[in-house]
Amino acid sequence: MPSLPGRPRCRVATLGGMTRDDAIARDLADPLASLRDRFVLADGLIYLDGNSLGPLPVGVPERVTAVVTEQWGKDLIASWNAHDWMRLPTMVGAKIARLVGAPDGTVVVGDSTSVQLFKLLLAASRLRPDRRVIVTDPATFPTDAYIAASVARLTDREIRWCEPSTVEASLAGDVAVLALTHVDYRTGQMYDAAALTAAAHAVDALVCWDLCHSAGAADVELAGWDADFAVGCGYKYLNGGPGAPAFAYVHPRWHDSLDQPLPGWLGHADPFAFEQRYRPAPGIERVRTGTPDVLSMIALDAALDAFDGVSTADLRSKSLALTDYFIALAVERLTPYGVVIEAPLEYERRGSQVCLRHPDAYGLVQALIARGVVGDFRTPDLARFGFAPMYTRFVDVWDAVEQAAAVLAGNEFADAEYATRKMVT
Amino acid sequence: MPSLPGRPRCRVATLGGMTRDDAIARDLADPLASLRDRFVLADGLIYLDGNSLGPLPVGVPERVTAVVTEQWGKDLIASWNAHDWMRLPTMVGAKIARLVGAPDGTVVVGDSTSVQLFKLLLAASRLRPDRRVIVTDPATFPTDAYIAASVARLTDREIRWCEPSTVEASLAGDVAVLALTHVDYRTGQMYDAAALTAAAHAVDALVCWDLCHSAGAADVELAGWDADFAVGCGYKYLNGGPGAPAFAYVHPRWHDSLDQPLPGWLGHADPFAFEQRYRPAPGIERVRTGTPDVLSMIALDAALDAFDGVSTADLRSKSLALTDYFIALAVERLTPYGVVIEAPLEYERRGSQVCLRHPDAYGLVQALIARGVVGDFRTPDLARFGFAPMYTRFVDVWDAVEQAAAVLAGNEFADAEYATRKMVT
Repeated sequence: MPSLPGRPRCRVATLGGMTRDDAIARDLADPLASLRDRFVLADGLIYLDGNSLGPLPVGVPERVTAVVTEQWGKDLIASWNAHDWMRLPTMVGAKIARLVGAPDGTVVVGDSTSVQLFKLLLAASRLRPDRRVIVTDPATFPTDAYIAASVARLTDREIRWCEPSTVEASLAGDVAVLALTHVDYRTGQMYDAAALTAAAHAVDALVCWDLCHSAGAADVELAGWDADFAVGCGYKYLNGGPGAPAFAYVHPRWHDSLDQPLPGWLGHADPFAFEQRYRPAPGIERVRTGTPDVLSMIALDAALDAFDGVSTADLRSKSLALTDYFIALAVERLTPYGVVIEAPLEYERRGSQVCLRHPDAYGLVQALIARGVVGDFRTPDLARFGFAPMYTRFVDVWDAVEQAAAVLAGNEFADAEYATRKMVT
Repeated sequence: MPSLPGRPRCRVATLGGMTRDDAIARDLADPLASLRDRFVLADGLIYLDGNSLGPLPVGVPERVTAVVTEQWGKDLIASWNAHDWMRLPTMVGAKIARLVGAPDGTVVVGDSTSVQLFKLLLAASRLRPDRRVIVTDPATFPTDAYIAASVARLTDREIRWCEPSTVEASLAGDVAVLALTHVDYRTGQMYDAAALTAAAHAVDALVCWDLCHSAGAADVELAGWDADFAVGCGYKYLNGGPGAPAFAYVHPRWHDSLDQPLPGWLGHADPFAFEQRYRPAPGIERVRTGTPDVLSMIALDAALDAFDGVSTADLRSKSLALTDYFIALAVERLTPYGVVIEAPLEYERRGSQVCLRHPDAYGLVQALIARGVVGDFRTPDLARFGFAPMYTRFVDVWDAVEQAAAVLAGNEFADAEYATRKMVT
């Protein structure tokens, strides 16, 4: 396994003469190999799209059925207390907190990532009333850019667009908040969150991290980074199901002053007093807005049990070993066909995905899906593969490269239609 | 059955000498009686809290299991196209449109009611940039008041609080938007939506209706009223499950100019182009924000099938017959114990619920729950009962009053603790 943390290193060039048996041997030696049993994955399926939609964890159907037929079906309204529905947003939040290096009582679940980001970016702006700038990366996932622009417009601020190399140079005394996505959804590039958080704090700006493509697979240490805010997605590496609720993190130093723009009754200090005037609840609860979406939240809650007893450091190590292996095999077997590998080689900058750039990337992805290797396409020319450390095997990596080489060698993708690209990131 | 529409009338005073057999006879004569079979309701349970959480429709568990185990579990990411997950917000919206008198293509499902209200109120304000006032009723459900206040603050407007009798007087040339809840969650009082929409339009203000306590049980005619915007809840009379997604309606005249403050990637004209700049989708789709919450949306979709072949006019007629019956029985049998009935007698002003005001309302509700009659308590002194026309029987009404009379006669509620009041409206 790669050693972490440490200097950038990569084992890309060391695979000459390897066989599929070597991949099988890696799986046999993998201390996390048995985690795959916690997921429903069909034989023969090589699922490298858990960065878009995580697979079904085994305990979920039972829990969802129980909440539908027993809790909703029989106990009805009494379930809000009897089955703790009311507390789900913070209970599920506590499970996520452990995976993102956050202390208890700092994470709440609900709404979508976009909505949570809106709440926290606008609240962050209010904490820096005299500063007119929001810094963000235009290559970020589009919703993040749209939401940042909306917050800027509503609060009479401007966006200062940066790119990975210019983030620090963009930070000045006029910056209210720096909003970045920890791992880029396309390039898989990971920011140095600790360093950039410190750089923003050095000019007294606040920082909000989008963890959609890192929570559950990469090193996330919100407390260690001293991050102010974060949001993230429940349905990618956390495996909470399609469109699962998002999460929001707020550093305890802001719990009492956070003033967010979607003040709902369940973020009120005394919701059942039904007061006309909003008084925010203490702590992270004030980030809540409406009634929690119980069915989806129970699915996410059950899904998070798959992480029981799993160390995030071990997940990160395996993730890097998987991407190392994919990169090395792809260099050897796919670059001869004109494929360009899009992934940072340095561990410190690499997320849990690798893209292959190729003019026929769309056709490549479709042909691979037909062969049972599921990745996805991102416009204009990226075939994207996620290596979720919970369930991906080294032999999956081997087989995926084998199939990709066969597609490229046979020029199979030539006729693939550009019709079914509408799949969710 | 009561005749509708027409002048205010009520049959409150005509029940002398009635027996439980009369109630049974009413059920036998009820053309909607068989709809109860579309719900899971335990024998012996009298559920008068469907205005807070609708019961489980029979088809829902199967559909939810299928989406979890077959679609998510087996087809994984391909389900976004293969099972039309991407289109769920508008497909489910179309089912709701029929129940609220809206044309196809005007309703979209997602987020919570609070979030949808925020989007539409802020967008409405932008359509009236020179007007500084939002008119709303302070007795409205608290989230609505908090959200209206937040919108006013973000757009430099003020709230003009009104009450039912002063709405029209509050409308002037400075009003951007009138935001009202069609049926009050406490008093059950229903606004004359057509008249107030017309009055607002007369001063060129826009109107947004909150339909949480009317959609699925009362007359809602959004097109007929000429309403500009509406929001509503999926988990009350629509029976979509705890915390089900909300819905939003936008009149077609605003589809091209609506400029809402939560611009997410799935409201973009071309989501999979992943453009940095937001270009709103045409039509109602632009109200969408993040990735749809599939599990909850499927539950709501399946739940709405319970309305197949049911006319909303018939639902309204039965709702009024049920509340007439409850009011008449309560006048006769409960008012002698100091109970005050809180519900408008005129049909035009009555929703689908009735409250009993009593100093020991909390204890009354608890004692009734112990006897299998489920209503809920609303501070400070209201016992609230909802009469959902889809599954409530006349004999349920009879039995509920019988049990309430027994509780009141025996002073049973005296020791009830005020500890479990935290139940969702």
